[in-house]
Amino acid sequence: MGDRIEDLPDILLEPVVRGALSEDLGRAGDVTTAATVPAGLKTNAVIAAREAGTVAGTRAAALAFQSLDPTLHCPIEAPDGTTVASGDIVMRIEGRARPILSAERVALNILCRMSGIATATAALVAAVRPHPTVITCTRKTTPGLRALEKHAVRAGGGKNHRFGLDDGVLIKDNHIALCGGVAVAVEAARVRTGHLSRIEVEVDTLDQLDAALAAGPDAVLLDNMSLDELRAAVTRVAGRLTTEASGGVTLQRAADIAATGVDVISVGWLTHSAPNLDLGLDIEPSSVSAGSN
Amino acid sequence: MGDRIEDLPDILLEPVVRGALSEDLGRAGDVTTAATVPAGLKTNAVIAAREAGTVAGTRAAALAFQSLDPTLHCPIEAPDGTTVASGDIVMRIEGRARPILSAERVALNILCRMSGIATATAALVAAVRPHPTVITCTRKTTPGLRALEKHAVRAGGGKNHRFGLDDGVLIKDNHIALCGGVAVAVEAARVRTGHLSRIEVEVDTLDQLDAALAAGPDAVLLDNMSLDELRAAVTRVAGRLTTEASGGVTLQRAADIAATGVDVISVGWLTHSAPNLDLGLDIEPSSVSAGSN
Amino acid sequence: MGDRIEDLPDILLEPVVRGALSEDLGRAGDVTTAATVPAGLKTNAVIAAREAGTVAGTRAAALAFQSLDPTLHCPIEAPDGTTVASGDIVMRIEGRARPILSAERVALNILCRMSGIATATAALVAAVRPHPTVITCTRKTTPGLRALEKHAVRAGGGKNHRFGLDDGVLIKDNHIALCGGVAVAVEAARVRTGHLSRIEVEVDTLDQLDAALAAGPDAVLLDNMSLDELRAAVTRVAGRLTTEASGGVTLQRAADIAATGVDVISVGWLTHSAPNLDLGLDIEPSSVSAGSN
Amino acid sequence: MGDRIEDLPDILLEPVVRGALSEDLGRAGDVTTAATVPAGLKTNAVIAAREAGTVAGTRAAALAFQSLDPTLHCPIEAPDGTTVASGDIVMRIEGRARPILSAERVALNILCRMSGIATATAALVAAVRPHPTVITCTRKTTPGLRALEKHAVRAGGGKNHRFGLDDGVLIKDNHIALCGGVAVAVEAARVRTGHLSRIEVEVDTLDQLDAALAAGPDAVLLDNMSLDELRAAVTRVAGRLTTEASGGVTLQRAADIAATGVDVISVGWLTHSAPNLDLGLDIEPSSVSAGSN
Amino acid sequence: MGDRIEDLPDILLEPVVRGALSEDLGRAGDVTTAATVPAGLKTNAVIAAREAGTVAGTRAAALAFQSLDPTLHCPIEAPDGTTVASGDIVMRIEGRARPILSAERVALNILCRMSGIATATAALVAAVRPHPTVITCTRKTTPGLRALEKHAVRAGGGKNHRFGLDDGVLIKDNHIALCGGVAVAVEAARVRTGHLSRIEVEVDTLDQLDAALAAGPDAVLLDNMSLDELRAAVTRVAGRLTTEASGGVTLQRAADIAATGVDVISVGWLTHSAPNLDLGLDIEPSSVSAGSN
Amino acid sequence: MGDRIEDLPDILLEPVVRGALSEDLGRAGDVTTAATVPAGLKTNAVIAAREAGTVAGTRAAALAFQSLDPTLHCPIEAPDGTTVASGDIVMRIEGRARPILSAERVALNILCRMSGIATATAALVAAVRPHPTVITCTRKTTPGLRALEKHAVRAGGGKNHRFGLDDGVLIKDNHIALCGGVAVAVEAARVRTGHLSRIEVEVDTLDQLDAALAAGPDAVLLDNMSLDELRAAVTRVAGRLTTEASGGVTLQRAADIAATGVDVISVGWLTHSAPNLDLGLDIEPSSVSAGSN
Repeated sequence: MGDRIEDLPDILLEPVVRGALSEDLGRAGDVTTAATVPAGLKTNAVIAAREAGTVAGTRAAALAFQSLDPTLHCPIEAPDGTTVASGDIVMRIEGRARPILSAERVALNILCRMSGIATATAALVAAVRPHPTVITCTRKTTPGLRALEKHAVRAGGGKNHRFGLDDGVLIKDNHIALCGGVAVAVEAARVRTGHLSRIEVEVDTLDQLDAALAAGPDAVLLDNMSLDELRAAVTRVAGRLTTEASGGVTLQRAADIAATGVDVISVGWLTHSAPNLDLGLDIEPSSVSAGSN
Repeated sequence: MGDRIEDLPDILLEPVVRGALSEDLGRAGDVTTAATVPAGLKTNAVIAAREAGTVAGTRAAALAFQSLDPTLHCPIEAPDGTTVASGDIVMRIEGRARPILSAERVALNILCRMSGIATATAALVAAVRPHPTVITCTRKTTPGLRALEKHAVRAGGGKNHRFGLDDGVLIKDNHIALCGGVAVAVEAARVRTGHLSRIEVEVDTLDQLDAALAAGPDAVLLDNMSLDELRAAVTRVAGRLTTEASGGVTLQRAADIAATGVDVISVGWLTHSAPNLDLGLDIEPSSVSAGSN
Repeated sequence: MGDRIEDLPDILLEPVVRGALSEDLGRAGDVTTAATVPAGLKTNAVIAAREAGTVAGTRAAALAFQSLDPTLHCPIEAPDGTTVASGDIVMRIEGRARPILSAERVALNILCRMSGIATATAALVAAVRPHPTVITCTRKTTPGLRALEKHAVRAGGGKNHRFGLDDGVLIKDNHIALCGGVAVAVEAARVRTGHLSRIEVEVDTLDQLDAALAAGPDAVLLDNMSLDELRAAVTRVAGRLTTEASGGVTLQRAADIAATGVDVISVGWLTHSAPNLDLGLDIEPSSVSAGSN
Repeated sequence: MGDRIEDLPDILLEPVVRGALSEDLGRAGDVTTAATVPAGLKTNAVIAAREAGTVAGTRAAALAFQSLDPTLHCPIEAPDGTTVASGDIVMRIEGRARPILSAERVALNILCRMSGIATATAALVAAVRPHPTVITCTRKTTPGLRALEKHAVRAGGGKNHRFGLDDGVLIKDNHIALCGGVAVAVEAARVRTGHLSRIEVEVDTLDQLDAALAAGPDAVLLDNMSLDELRAAVTRVAGRLTTEASGGVTLQRAADIAATGVDVISVGWLTHSAPNLDLGLDIEPSSVSAGSN
Repeated sequence: MGDRIEDLPDILLEPVVRGALSEDLGRAGDVTTAATVPAGLKTNAVIAAREAGTVAGTRAAALAFQSLDPTLHCPIEAPDGTTVASGDIVMRIEGRARPILSAERVALNILCRMSGIATATAALVAAVRPHPTVITCTRKTTPGLRALEKHAVRAGGGKNHRFGLDDGVLIKDNHIALCGGVAVAVEAARVRTGHLSRIEVEVDTLDQLDAALAAGPDAVLLDNMSLDELRAAVTRVAGRLTTEASGGVTLQRAADIAATGVDVISVGWLTHSAPNLDLGLDIEPSSVSAGSN
Repeated sequence: MGDRIEDLPDILLEPVVRGALSEDLGRAGDVTTAATVPAGLKTNAVIAAREAGTVAGTRAAALAFQSLDPTLHCPIEAPDGTTVASGDIVMRIEGRARPILSAERVALNILCRMSGIATATAALVAAVRPHPTVITCTRKTTPGLRALEKHAVRAGGGKNHRFGLDDGVLIKDNHIALCGGVAVAVEAARVRTGHLSRIEVEVDTLDQLDAALAAGPDAVLLDNMSLDELRAAVTRVAGRLTTEASGGVTLQRAADIAATGVDVISVGWLTHSAPNLDLGLDIEPSSVSAGSN
């Protein structure tokens, strides 16, 4: 427990990692390495941060190397959730040089992206302190990578919104319009869903909030509201249910939003537009040996 | 073939699109829409730009809708490669409301990401004009999305580097070190690869460039060089082979790099850190009808 | 949306249906039908109930036929959730005879199993009337069929518990023992999960219930309690959170459990041991025609 | 050899086991266990029978645990085909607590279902003793689980009918009607199939049996016949080919059917409606240790 | 059912066809055609024989085209099993030029291989006439193509041996050696297999044949015997069970083997070493039109 | 890197090997071996050449055995690219007898096919000596096996043409006709492709060659030309670009073609019609032991 973020089970990571390797190896594999690096050569490599940030994706990165060669040894120096400075070592890879070079790009593509998300999340989490506001992601994730990206948000200190369309109810304006009103929509959702799911309603105005509160959901999403509106909304809700703010959340504005008293701030760009964290792999020249293979 | 960028074949897009839908629908599907929107209801929706940019991914977005309901009609108003202003309509979706709402997020996740890449590429392409320099991407792509992201670069006016480790030879410093020199490496690669592949060598210094030129590759990658170094390198190469610059390419610095005379500028952040282009889906209220289903 | 149970999206049904067809067709297909039935022959078939019950799985059954021949016409006479008597027609299949015969077994294997679950659920739902108690299933489902079996429970008038280990927290005795107490466990879960998830704690005794209530979960699972214990538990909970009873639920005992005032009764055998509903396919002899193919 | 039933190859079990784990772990894995159980904690667990029966599925259950953690040790105490009493230990699982808890439900879902089928089969096999009659299953299996369910029938002492539409010919009434008679159908099938396949014809009446015998199949399926009809059928066949009875086979009636002298009794409900055998997993409290991980 | 060979179900062909297309299209699709052929251009193409032979694989070839573009029209002129002369048209493809060119190679790769097998089979079938000997293939097939190659053998007038290790028993010398004798092996197999499977024993000598006959199998495989031995074996078997000859079967020697009276001749090289039949695709120049797309 | 041909990465071989095993094991596995060979029995087996040739596919063959039982030990005696005489041992397999027998056919099907291709390639490579002409394969490969077959060509001393439609441009007559001329086609391809791809144009006549040369491709494919035409073509090209001859290449004619001075000879039948190399597996009788399993 402690501060360590638990890794996703390998069984969830493997399809992503193997898919990425297959995508990069194509039909003929790494022809450059096959042509230039002796098969038996062994070496040590390190992945180090080239800038400061929060790490995520180390287990997936290790799997990238071990999927090409299960005998590679991949000790993690900076587990997911760790804050690193430029130059800090994140993980080591020791064993045959060929699979290390062939998996390098895939491992970094995953690790840099997930660490970028974790770093952006950590910045937002820091920005809202000391407010108890929770930072959470959305469903605006990269196709195929949702589980990994949501994990990266957790590594950065955030929490997760629902994982998909099936594990939580979020009633938006289109649903309300097509259903005939928010009360009907909440009631219909209540009939449909089990007792471990919560129902949230998205509102754009305080009038819509009043209508939503009358319908009795478990949470309200206050979308694109001004700080004044958010404050008024929190007052009206008065702790009866969870309040979530979204829209226009920047690192600069996050503290002000948190100060309105909302429980949750959800941020789409954490997963769709956070830039990669710069990490790189270096071969340790002195470690190269002919190997026995 | 005019300015129209050809779409990737559906057979290459379908696994990505269906995987993303499966990821979002989970085990129970879109419970909110199932609970609140009548099964037979029909409507018209539009996807419009919320900011200016270059569009990419329209065919994949259409497939997202049609994978849930093959009877949805999805005319494309702004094909891939089109420059749009905020408010411009990119595509329309007409038919049953349920699958439109259920596929909305997946369609947008793909479309906004690809359009973000196309937009960033187009900006770089514009920045280097009137130099004939080609803007190209790298293998620093999102796991599972390489084909789509490379297509987005083409939609933005860029060209593609190799697609993977198997369809081109790029000899880097680690290969040279482990192989015993650049001449040995180029010769080994020449023996290994077919007559439709080219061989490129990465160099960091002018001294390395001289060694590389002596080895006779088809292209050189000038990595992280200063503008002065790039100019000197272009002079030494003297048109004998293709020159590619990489490292530290910003929108601001791109024109200066192009002015050094390099043939190609390759940019990793086009695919790993370009922010999404903001596009949104709107239901046209007047279009809702009970439908016959 | 009336009484009609919405179908699962085809995209979730297709892997199951195609997998089942592939399993039955093996490597050579339906050799008996290929040898004995002319390729162009057309016919009409009906699937009818051989005993009374509640129907579920019609869309999957239709997909089984249409996966072998997209031109087959498969009108549904008794949509999911419909109560049928012996002899009632559930669906029709019209078109080429070969694919009808080749898909028959797979279609019935799915339809009879799902209808068996819906029928058992409907019986339990009827048994607890007029109490407002909800009947729900568990994770004791058949490997690979969870989404379909949970849908069948809904078709029978039940509701769904969580769909998997990821979309709801259910803290059991082993978790509590390994975590160091129920209060620690609930707090740890609260930190880990998002605002649309609920947290439930399983208890076996009233003492455990008291400890659980102090920990502040959103629901309690009262496992294998006597009717007296259930009544006492409901009294202690006093409406503060959801109460769920499980263990030893028979058709005979269900009304008594409901009378204790619990909100939910969960039943594992609905999905793991409900017998199939007997449905059969008949060719209408007069419908056979040579066809034009 | 001996009495031990051979396991299916892992390569056939793995897709089922991994599919079931993926279905249960969803996108985020076992959030309850991740939140409450320390990563390094080790423990011993046992799976024991809660009622008497015949075991099947132990190898698949072990694979469920080892698919989440290959270092788990899973000794089998009661191999497939073993008769157990309530309380008997079937298998042990030793190692990290987290994967044991996360795979528990999937392992039990498979093991309880397969053991339920084996138990029902064993009861039928016992019921027909001392007649030499073979008990066999049909193609009325659960989608995706046919190989496992057929294995469970063997574990219970039964034998297997054909595995699919491709590995044996069974000519039914619809085939005969559409083909133009049983003689034509058998001849067509003989032309189509190889020399290691047998041809069986289904008949409902003694008149149909006479026609079938004239056509020269290798076996006849006597469907829904009375005991008198079965006796008469056996007399007419006079040992020239294999006789199989089906329809209305209950535990009570099985001995009477066997006494008619038929060679084989096939029973659909063995695989589609046999209730699960009740087995449960218990953590051995004294075994918990902090572990070194 | 006349002379027409029934096609395999599309559901069995699609994975092979789509896999082959994916293998050829790689990550970027057909870049040559995308660059050079206008998107809307329509044309007619024909696939014609460049040498005489027997056709197989037309349905798979049509699927290759239609998998890239479902609107392509692909009438079959020479269905599977047809004998064609050089120049004869096998099938036509009409519609957009791009998908026709992009699928051409995959369609031909399948069609030429399957037709090569059908042609070789037809030659052997002709060679053994007027003997009633059946020509059959073995399990020596190309990985991934067994169902298609066995279909091609049927198209050539041959029949199929078992499809895999699971749908027939063939006891070879290693099994006998490891089992402790042929009698034990046959008895063990009889206990294990269902009533629709036959049991065959492989023998190399007449002494082994005598032992095998005593064990009571359903067929014997006479491996690598001389013509004299085959004649003696047929005499000893005396029609009690099926006799199969294998080993050293050439087109020249086939008639002599058939004349020994064996029931079946099995030939591995039909599927592993038959050369492709030469077929080619031609665009009809006059058919090109600009199209409306 | 010496003469040793590097193996393809396991991650590329596994889908082919596992698919082939699944195809052969079907739904019930190897019933003959399960019935006749004791589970614990251990043995040693060898795969030896039954005729002279060049080996390819040893790693895939080893994976076939190890996919059924990871504890099998499979030392390679004759790595890919080795020339063997009849009787030479290629690899050994040591461990449990059951998986050795069950994987035998799949391992040999792959190994014999790949070695057949390597053997044919080696013969052509020998035939063109001492000319520097390169022997290369085409895209006329077996569906699903392209990577393995192209590897086999390398093992035989050949080189590879492009791997698919996406990693090289080959402009054929149809492209030229539909594009409006070879100059337009080459220019369009140049615009579309990256700087690591080469562009080749197929020509049938010397006139077409002149037009192609004017268009500036990187290579020309001289299709079905006479020796005189080839000589003339080489003269006209005068070393400015790569010349490739194809069509009508036999073992007899290869030296004459090479003598014309072309750089490359490409041969479709290497991969589509080379006969298998005959290799067989033998159990070493003295090695059988009861084992401890």
